[in-house]
Amino acid sequence: MDIHFLSVIPEVFPPYLDASIMGRAQAGGFVRFFTHNLRDWTHDRHRTVDDAPFGGGQGMLMKPEPFFEAVGEIISRSEVALKVVFLSPHGTPFTQEKARELSEEAGLLLVAGRYEGMDERVFSLADEVISLGDFVLTGGELAAMAVADACTRLIPGVLGNELSAAEESFEDGLLECAQYTRPAVYRGMAVPEVLLSGDHGKVALWRRENALERTRRLRPDLLAGEEVSSRA
Amino acid sequence: MDIHFLSVIPEVFPPYLDASIMGRAQAGGFVRFFTHNLRDWTHDRHRTVDDAPFGGGQGMLMKPEPFFEAVGEIISRSEVALKVVFLSPHGTPFTQEKARELSEEAGLLLVAGRYEGMDERVFSLADEVISLGDFVLTGGELAAMAVADACTRLIPGVLGNELSAAEESFEDGLLECAQYTRPAVYRGMAVPEVLLSGDHGKVALWRRENALERTRRLRPDLLAGEEVSSRA
Repeated sequence: MDIHFLSVIPEVFPPYLDASIMGRAQAGGFVRFFTHNLRDWTHDRHRTVDDAPFGGGQGMLMKPEPFFEAVGEIISRSEVALKVVFLSPHGTPFTQEKARELSEEAGLLLVAGRYEGMDERVFSLADEVISLGDFVLTGGELAAMAVADACTRLIPGVLGNELSAAEESFEDGLLECAQYTRPAVYRGMAVPEVLLSGDHGKVALWRRENALERTRRLRPDLLAGEEVSSRA
Repeated sequence: MDIHFLSVIPEVFPPYLDASIMGRAQAGGFVRFFTHNLRDWTHDRHRTVDDAPFGGGQGMLMKPEPFFEAVGEIISRSEVALKVVFLSPHGTPFTQEKARELSEEAGLLLVAGRYEGMDERVFSLADEVISLGDFVLTGGELAAMAVADACTRLIPGVLGNELSAAEESFEDGLLECAQYTRPAVYRGMAVPEVLLSGDHGKVALWRRENALERTRRLRPDLLAGEEVSSRA
């Protein structure tokens, strides 16, 4: 999978994308990351990407021209078809389901704006507009990295045996169950006995019930209108 | 405001935190960022932070000891009180309201896990557990940066005149209105005439109505149960 990033601060991407699991996903040939500086598609000496908003108001808006030129050129030079995804607070909230869908694309072009926002016409370039959530960031870069991370880890082989997808949060509509490792007692806090029992059936049942209980307590909204099996 | 980050890949934070508005917020003395490597609180030659889960299963869990020692020491060495925030999919979904609340703290310690998760006892250290959204990332680092970004930009003075908070997405329960800058016509797409009119009253009314229309169309959930004034 090819994932492209378009931003005015492309230098923020590689340190995260080269670390840990993202770095191993690149080294293993599962994903290729490409970063692009929006200012490379400006034509003035100051490499201007913003301008004042029509109708007045504080702050600056990102101009349409560099986005149109950049997206057009990145797509035309790509070896694979690219789905163009803009990150913006007015987009569709990102979910695990969307991550799974996007992880099946041949390529993504993730476009991150900064300043007060982008000229609205820019969004006509988008196949999708995604929002990370109901909060405002100084730019779309972290959202772009989050989308790339969530998609990359779902590419078969990236997590190898580490991944047990069915046990993960949100994959079955529930939060993940509580988990414990050694020591069995730490600072007076003991691991639930059933987990030490070696009885796989009981462990599986406990995990399912714990996941259900946590979801009911912490995120009842995830269960609303859903029928959830309480069988392990 | 002091914001601390605890992670096994602390090198991923500075490039983002030193760039653009976060960098300026540091330079202006509005915020100080501190990164900590969790492995500095291990005591074996391999600096081990993970172990196999009790009860079996694939993947590794993060051990409790390094977290307890690290959080204790970072708090005790801090010049200001630190609110301890863990990033995890089972946490409370992050919102703009939460960002505003956290931005009023003297200090935050943002704790990011990796691998399949953390030993459940670790969360007893948390004042709050926050989730970036209903998706799974390879670690909490991007979520920690998103929380730091959303909070920092709300510190008075960081955005200066750039910020018109009331016009931002989510601050008034609505998405932000569409915005436009030059040129007035680009690739056949024209800026709405009212924005070129110079009539401030009409512009304000159009913006309010546009924000309402966008919210109804794109995020009707934000309006559910809310009474929204349609006056500008």
